[in-house]
Amino acid sequence: MTDNYVHHPEEEAIVAMLMMRATAIGEKNAKDALSFDADDSVEFSLAPPLVNHGKDEAGLQDWFNTWDGPIGGGVEDAKLTIDGDVGFWSGLVHMTGTKTDGTEVDLWFRQTLGLVKKDGRWLVAHQHASVPFAMDGSGRALLDLKP
Amino acid sequence: MTDNYVHHPEEEAIVAMLMMRATAIGEKNAKDALSFDADDSVEFSLAPPLVNHGKDEAGLQDWFNTWDGPIGGGVEDAKLTIDGDVGFWSGLVHMTGTKTDGTEVDLWFRQTLGLVKKDGRWLVAHQHASVPFAMDGSGRALLDLKP
Repeated sequence: MTDNYVHHPEEEAIVAMLMMRATAIGEKNAKDALSFDADDSVEFSLAPPLVNHGKDEAGLQDWFNTWDGPIGGGVEDAKLTIDGDVGFWSGLVHMTGTKTDGTEVDLWFRQTLGLVKKDGRWLVAHQHASVPFAMDGSGRALLDLKP
Repeated sequence: MTDNYVHHPEEEAIVAMLMMRATAIGEKNAKDALSFDADDSVEFSLAPPLVNHGKDEAGLQDWFNTWDGPIGGGVEDAKLTIDGDVGFWSGLVHMTGTKTDGTEVDLWFRQTLGLVKKDGRWLVAHQHASVPFAMDGSGRALLDLKP
């Protein structure tokens, strides 16, 4: 960020929402986390299927419950683009922690968020999370890449 | 689409741009395809690395040249959200064709595009393409999912 960087007036509201959402995810509170998502959310998740429509609080809480303790997070290379009531965010997300089966997770993935302002509140209307896959014919998801 | 669906006035311009861009990709013309991308484009590709910044015409043309004949495409579950000079698009993309080594490709992947209008032209400022991976511990990219 340089001195001549111009903040969009809505940037602060969006970043605050994203931070509250990240806190809810870290604390594994599905109800709170999904309170920042639009009802007709379109999700392309790390896990199958290809696409999920709408919110699934029970499913998200079940997944949160596969973690022992909080889910750690961090972001690099974040970029937010906004005009009017629409925006999109992209960045590299670092997810860390321990699963209940003892597996240690230390994963960097790419995340894109589609944002809309509805009734004065910014919401996540679309989310896309992924890792690339190896082009060597192995069909291996690349789970060990670092920024 | 229902009778009370309200078109955003910019929707036609964006869809036309995306169709011209898809045609250039199908015809494997890297220069034309990249003419629809912003100079500071952020790309999360099917292939590593995690992120690419900017445009790489030579790299894209090299990849196009690994295909024998045109690259086939199709889209399902497309959704476009626009306000002012910013929008985002999400959909499931079907990529088909034959590689020069004889491999037949028939892949469905998820795609998100971040769109910005600059000097009166809509451009792709961000693109994210992926498949999910298996959560069975195999770390296998799921290359055979269908919508």
